[in-house]
Amino acid sequence: MINGTVMYEWMKDLWPINRSLTGEGVRETLKYLKQLNPELQIKNYQSGEKVFDWEIPDEWNVTEAWVKDPGGNKIIDFSWNNLHLVGYSMPIKQSMRLSDLKNYLHTLPHQPNAIPYVTSYYKRTWGFCLEHKKLEELKDGTYEVYIDSCHKKGVLNFGEVYIAGESQQEILFSTYICHPSMANNELSGPVLASAIILYLKNLKKRKYSYRILLMPETIGSISYISKNFNELRKNVHAGFVLSCVGDEQEYSIINSRYGNNEADRTLGFILSEYVSSDKIKRYSFLSRGSDERQYCSPGVDLPFCGFSRSKYGTYEEYHTSLDNLDFVSPRGLEQSYVIMTKVIQLLERNCYLKSNFQCEPQLGKRGLYPNISKAGSYPGELRDMMNFLAYADGKNDLIDICKITGVRLEMLYNIVDKLTEHSVVYSSDE
Amino acid sequence: MINGTVMYEWMKDLWPINRSLTGEGVRETLKYLKQLNPELQIKNYQSGEKVFDWEIPDEWNVTEAWVKDPGGNKIIDFSWNNLHLVGYSMPIKQSMRLSDLKNYLHTLPHQPNAIPYVTSYYKRTWGFCLEHKKLEELKDGTYEVYIDSCHKKGVLNFGEVYIAGESQQEILFSTYICHPSMANNELSGPVLASAIILYLKNLKKRKYSYRILLMPETIGSISYISKNFNELRKNVHAGFVLSCVGDEQEYSIINSRYGNNEADRTLGFILSEYVSSDKIKRYSFLSRGSDERQYCSPGVDLPFCGFSRSKYGTYEEYHTSLDNLDFVSPRGLEQSYVIMTKVIQLLERNCYLKSNFQCEPQLGKRGLYPNISKAGSYPGELRDMMNFLAYADGKNDLIDICKITGVRLEMLYNIVDKLTEHSVVYSSDE
Amino acid sequence: MINGTVMYEWMKDLWPINRSLTGEGVRETLKYLKQLNPELQIKNYQSGEKVFDWEIPDEWNVTEAWVKDPGGNKIIDFSWNNLHLVGYSMPIKQSMRLSDLKNYLHTLPHQPNAIPYVTSYYKRTWGFCLEHKKLEELKDGTYEVYIDSCHKKGVLNFGEVYIAGESQQEILFSTYICHPSMANNELSGPVLASAIILYLKNLKKRKYSYRILLMPETIGSISYISKNFNELRKNVHAGFVLSCVGDEQEYSIINSRYGNNEADRTLGFILSEYVSSDKIKRYSFLSRGSDERQYCSPGVDLPFCGFSRSKYGTYEEYHTSLDNLDFVSPRGLEQSYVIMTKVIQLLERNCYLKSNFQCEPQLGKRGLYPNISKAGSYPGELRDMMNFLAYADGKNDLIDICKITGVRLEMLYNIVDKLTEHSVVYSSDE
Repeated sequence: MINGTVMYEWMKDLWPINRSLTGEGVRETLKYLKQLNPELQIKNYQSGEKVFDWEIPDEWNVTEAWVKDPGGNKIIDFSWNNLHLVGYSMPIKQSMRLSDLKNYLHTLPHQPNAIPYVTSYYKRTWGFCLEHKKLEELKDGTYEVYIDSCHKKGVLNFGEVYIAGESQQEILFSTYICHPSMANNELSGPVLASAIILYLKNLKKRKYSYRILLMPETIGSISYISKNFNELRKNVHAGFVLSCVGDEQEYSIINSRYGNNEADRTLGFILSEYVSSDKIKRYSFLSRGSDERQYCSPGVDLPFCGFSRSKYGTYEEYHTSLDNLDFVSPRGLEQSYVIMTKVIQLLERNCYLKSNFQCEPQLGKRGLYPNISKAGSYPGELRDMMNFLAYADGKNDLIDICKITGVRLEMLYNIVDKLTEHSVVYSSDE
Repeated sequence: MINGTVMYEWMKDLWPINRSLTGEGVRETLKYLKQLNPELQIKNYQSGEKVFDWEIPDEWNVTEAWVKDPGGNKIIDFSWNNLHLVGYSMPIKQSMRLSDLKNYLHTLPHQPNAIPYVTSYYKRTWGFCLEHKKLEELKDGTYEVYIDSCHKKGVLNFGEVYIAGESQQEILFSTYICHPSMANNELSGPVLASAIILYLKNLKKRKYSYRILLMPETIGSISYISKNFNELRKNVHAGFVLSCVGDEQEYSIINSRYGNNEADRTLGFILSEYVSSDKIKRYSFLSRGSDERQYCSPGVDLPFCGFSRSKYGTYEEYHTSLDNLDFVSPRGLEQSYVIMTKVIQLLERNCYLKSNFQCEPQLGKRGLYPNISKAGSYPGELRDMMNFLAYADGKNDLIDICKITGVRLEMLYNIVDKLTEHSVVYSSDE
Repeated sequence: MINGTVMYEWMKDLWPINRSLTGEGVRETLKYLKQLNPELQIKNYQSGEKVFDWEIPDEWNVTEAWVKDPGGNKIIDFSWNNLHLVGYSMPIKQSMRLSDLKNYLHTLPHQPNAIPYVTSYYKRTWGFCLEHKKLEELKDGTYEVYIDSCHKKGVLNFGEVYIAGESQQEILFSTYICHPSMANNELSGPVLASAIILYLKNLKKRKYSYRILLMPETIGSISYISKNFNELRKNVHAGFVLSCVGDEQEYSIINSRYGNNEADRTLGFILSEYVSSDKIKRYSFLSRGSDERQYCSPGVDLPFCGFSRSKYGTYEEYHTSLDNLDFVSPRGLEQSYVIMTKVIQLLERNCYLKSNFQCEPQLGKRGLYPNISKAGSYPGELRDMMNFLAYADGKNDLIDICKITGVRLEMLYNIVDKLTEHSVVYSSDE
């Protein structure tokens, strides 16, 4: 059991790194994560490669970036906060009047103390982001702008972990490593993924194999799917996009296009079982935004859904400097971790069960049924066991049986263990 | 664009003609309609022919019909209002006491100022209809009754227009021409059908072929189906029975037996898109009454539904002399026309669309996606476009996609045009 | 028509007999029932035979059983009420202190005047049941206990009636004969079954064959299914477990596992048609308890459901001496009988009907449609007939048509008779 405080410490370590689609920051991030789980392989695709309708972009790195006011004082500096620089900005060194400079400055008038997060991946431009309050204080005059950045052929890096199980069928967790210093909408994903890897390695037995992908959003998943589609189609039993999983608010599921794949079913049910209904938000695919966009797209249709706490786009700190280490918490991370371990446990245990007998088995001779029949001698657990048996017909998996009978999942696990041990039921999957 | 005033003028011209299942009035009506659309062919079936369980009736014509009171004054005259004579009345010339005559007089006690509409197609009898108020004023004595009518072997006439399109698959509009002077429950249908023909002829391109039928109700559609069943079954993509389409009240759909054919879906959806929900009445097949009775009957099962404003049988003027030119209006006719053109437009455009790409296409490089990614840079139309693409998987037609995504139909048309132009999607029907 | 008073008299006759899974009481009960219906065959299975996961138990008979207090007075005597003795008690003759005796005494503290019903079929023990009030009055001292009972290899008896119909497809009624003196949860079942047999024999025509089974609960049905599974699977069209059918409270249906077999549909619909909705209780299979447990179990899946008035386990007199002849009534029995005859009538009449015509048949020429068409000339029954015809497409049985059209079942019977007589419709089952 990983605890939230450990996960939170990882986030603090990763916080200052300037991540983007590509570049040094991504590699630095992946190297840190590899320390936690040496199984992590750092892989890459070459700039310029075609991936479906897209092309792997050039690598982007930044050495220095700032703006000086007419008095020569730095008023914006990338080294203070990497959100200050528009992602993928071109290099520039120029003096310009404030009125011209303003065309390149981004602020949030309604959140005057927040630095917005802005990128321009696919069209060359440059720009700075700052607090609207600060913008309003700027005086006329000539400002000096300096960006020492570089775009060049290089690679798009990503991390991959594969943990083999009994079956080639696999469970996939996908998260992203392309945002600079933001906490919920970036770092919560990789740290939860790292904790899941540790959990999986500690399992004594794994029915499924597991794959964890840490990639830049959109272009990363498009590239990976493009290169591995046949294997993914053949092997993926369920997949989960982890995004914004570090706060303590609601638990969100972002369903697939038709909302009925194995990931939808499993996560949807685990939330019902372990989270009070007023804390659950179920979003349709219309509210998608992270890599479920790609995994679930027409023609790809992998059985994925998304998992979030406060979903991207629904909280006002999203994509600003306010999505910081205060917005997330050890407790929030740990709660998300617990939900994901419950998801894994259910996936591992879930199967179609079948009774070994026509008619009711005689539970009494196995010590599972009271020998004296009198009013009130029929406890709740026995009723649950009988109801489980009534629907263990090979057509219902554990989720179906819980839904039909109202038996709680943890109780069902006990019942299945007991009845399997007594050879009353068997998994008809095998 | 036909305007309602023109349609209303046509109704006024057609008003005085004495229509019935067969006879001169039907031919006169069809000749008038042929002036509007010379493509209209006036066809016929012979009296006595067997059509399914029915037989084409004899032709019926009336020269004169009246009742004189004991003082020799005409108190009822067919030439005043053709509703005065029971449809298909036998000839008679007779003097009779009021008490005997009353067995042949039909009135509406609860609508004392209305002349009821009464017919006796399949059993030979005679009768007159009059205002109940007038009946109560009649004095005892001997009345003279005169009907100069004639039943003879002849023909049942109907009109047919066929407008070829790219496909042999056709859209059918069916309406009736068998009621004497009534406005909503008769003339609104033929004039709307005539306007639709003009609209269709003006279309630059027609995916579907179109057939318009103007026939006596029940026996007309039974005859036509009986003679053309195999072609109808093979070719009809959707069909609509037009009845009572001239008033300004609600918009009604009368669904087919199971309510799920292409006509049900298309008209049902067009009403949802263009009419406020409190003005829409959706009737099940249990409320049928016009020729959808035949087109949708067991063993026929053509994909029809009915379209009405105030549906037959739901308004008190129905089947009386009060269903007159005041009950309908140019505006009501024009609104019905607009709905039908929207139905045609949707049928013409509807198809199963499919993306040319796995994963999301890169809309940015086509100028369809903002190059700068920042909060709020994602306008509603872009969201609609992305949502359309998410469900353009070849399994959903435009109606499905509108329903799933909530995108408005007119917006979807724009999106489809744009994405087709950029070769991002294609119709998987072709 | 059997009346409730007669059924109630049968119950009174059967009341004193000591029934159990096996033994003299069962045979005596079956002999009595055979007097009512000589077709009843008394059959048996041998003790020790394996039936699925179970084994036929030894036969159990009791001669005498009592407890005497320290003063030598009988305080409990099996001859007073056969509930006093725990079912399947071993023989014993022993003196023991009250404190020891108490381990073998069963009472209901919350119902101090009721003797509970207790059995121990599958584990050898002994015991007495008494009123809690009486237990509290017992004084310390040495009590004498005497049970002259005997377990031996023998038989498990059951009764079977088979009434042949035109088809080998059969309707099955199953009820139990294993409880000692209790009225609703025992005798109501066999007497209703006996009345049903009389009813069936009097039918002039039977489409289905009928089988009635009178067996000990659980082990009886398990044995019977085990021995006759292939025939049951092949022949049973619908089956009903009759249990607790003698009181005047609600009408209960206990649905099968998925709630959608022919028995569920038929009984469920008959209750909707003939019972006001506030008197109907619909239980899912989670509330099962009688032999539907076996008939509907996974791997057996026969089309059964259960019928009860106040369902076993829902009323406080259940499984106590208070479930006596006052708890049931002639009226309650007769109401249950009427419902079952309605079920039989519907099963006999139900079929998939089909019109002989494409389009509407011409009802007028058959005298089934008014010849004069005028407002209000369309009575409710005609509307019902037309609606019936609209759905008589070979895909709907009578239940479907009633549900779709809202036509009442008895009216539908009339319509079907009339239209069959006029060769307008025919059963497409044949």
